Amino acid sequence: MASPEIEALTQALARLPGLGPRSARRAVLHLLKKRETALTPLLRALETVNERLSTCSTCGNVDTSDPCAICADPRRDQRSLCVVEEVADLWALERSRLFPGRFHVLGGRLSALEGVRPEDLSVDRLVARVSGGGIDEVVLATNATLEGQTTAHYIAERLESFPIRLTRLAHGLPVGGELDYLDEGTLAQALRARRPID
Amino acid sequence: MASPEIEALTQALARLPGLGPRSARRAVLHLLKKRETALTPLLRALETVNERLSTCSTCGNVDTSDPCAICADPRRDQRSLCVVEEVADLWALERSRLFPGRFHVLGGRLSALEGVRPEDLSVDRLVARVSGGGIDEVVLATNATLEGQTTAHYIAERLESFPIRLTRLAHGLPVGGELDYLDEGTLAQALRARRPID
Ligand SMILES: [Zn+2]
Ligand SMILES: [Zn+2]
Repeated sequence: MASPEIEALTQALARLPGLGPRSARRAVLHLLKKRETALTPLLRALETVNERLSTCSTCGNVDTSDPCAICADPRRDQRSLCVVEEVADLWALERSRLFPGRFHVLGGRLSALEGVRPEDLSVDRLVARVSGGGIDEVVLATNATLEGQTTAHYIAERLESFPIRLTRLAHGLPVGGELDYLDEGTLAQALRARRPID
Repeated sequence: MASPEIEALTQALARLPGLGPRSARRAVLHLLKKRETALTPLLRALETVNERLSTCSTCGNVDTSDPCAICADPRRDQRSLCVVEEVADLWALERSRLFPGRFHVLGGRLSALEGVRPEDLSVDRLVARVSGGGIDEVVLATNATLEGQTTAHYIAERLESFPIRLTRLAHGLPVGGELDYLDEGTLAQALRARRPID
């Protein structure tokens, strides 16, 4: 029906999570009809992000600057570090505005099944950050899945010799639940009731 | 939470139909994580479409060429013309692959309420196409709304002196229904049973 160029745009949009082929077609039609107010702003925003996109060499967040806006913000509590599996989890916690400290993105979780080992995650970099000093508390905010909890225990072992409070999000997270899908209320409760790793 | 650049991208996506703030954030995160396979292809597709986007000076379709792919296709039946209100309606009919002819996009519908008059639509251009000859049938595929039907009647009057079959989509369209939202089965039935304007 449409030109190959418009087809390519439709398919690129349809591959985004939350958009199917039908809603992608609607979105494309909207972009074509509203060139000045929709297509151009989206294009410019993508160009800018594409130019500046980088992974924060401190925490692993993705942002348009390195260090990322969170690591560079002097108002954030530098003595408190929250360890998450993925950037999506960091964003979920940031949306809730509950955690005043900084983050550390592991880049996944330990998984025998998927062959993910400690050296595949940024655990060594986390240990280095902690051993650098100045950190009082590390909150392990891995998912409440078996693999997430295994990862938390592994990290707890790696950090046990440091003079820090090591805590994890309270249960209250639904078992098997993934952080990124939780509402803010649940996240708030879990964070408030965080407790030391046994 | 995110940099202004990433916020701008999220907002540009959130304004697309079918995407809210939450799914836009998910989409952005996906784009940031899959730079090579998601962000770059979407950016290139948008750039190409933005460069080549034009409105077909023959039929009013939006495409990456003028004349559009439909008007330029020699296999389409040039003796049959389907008049629609909006480009979205043209696309809905094209998706169903039911109409073998060409189109004419009015760019709206007559509306006393919204102050849309005949000269605001491409009716004169339609009359010019028909008076140019070579057209046997004009199918009036305006929406089954009061304004759509008023528009169809007005066009029928403007075309009554020409030696053409003037038809409209059969009722069978749900009353008040907009073409763009119908399933293909309903569209197929309505097109098959099209009948002369009284
Ligand atoms: Zn950072
Ligand atoms: Zn055309």
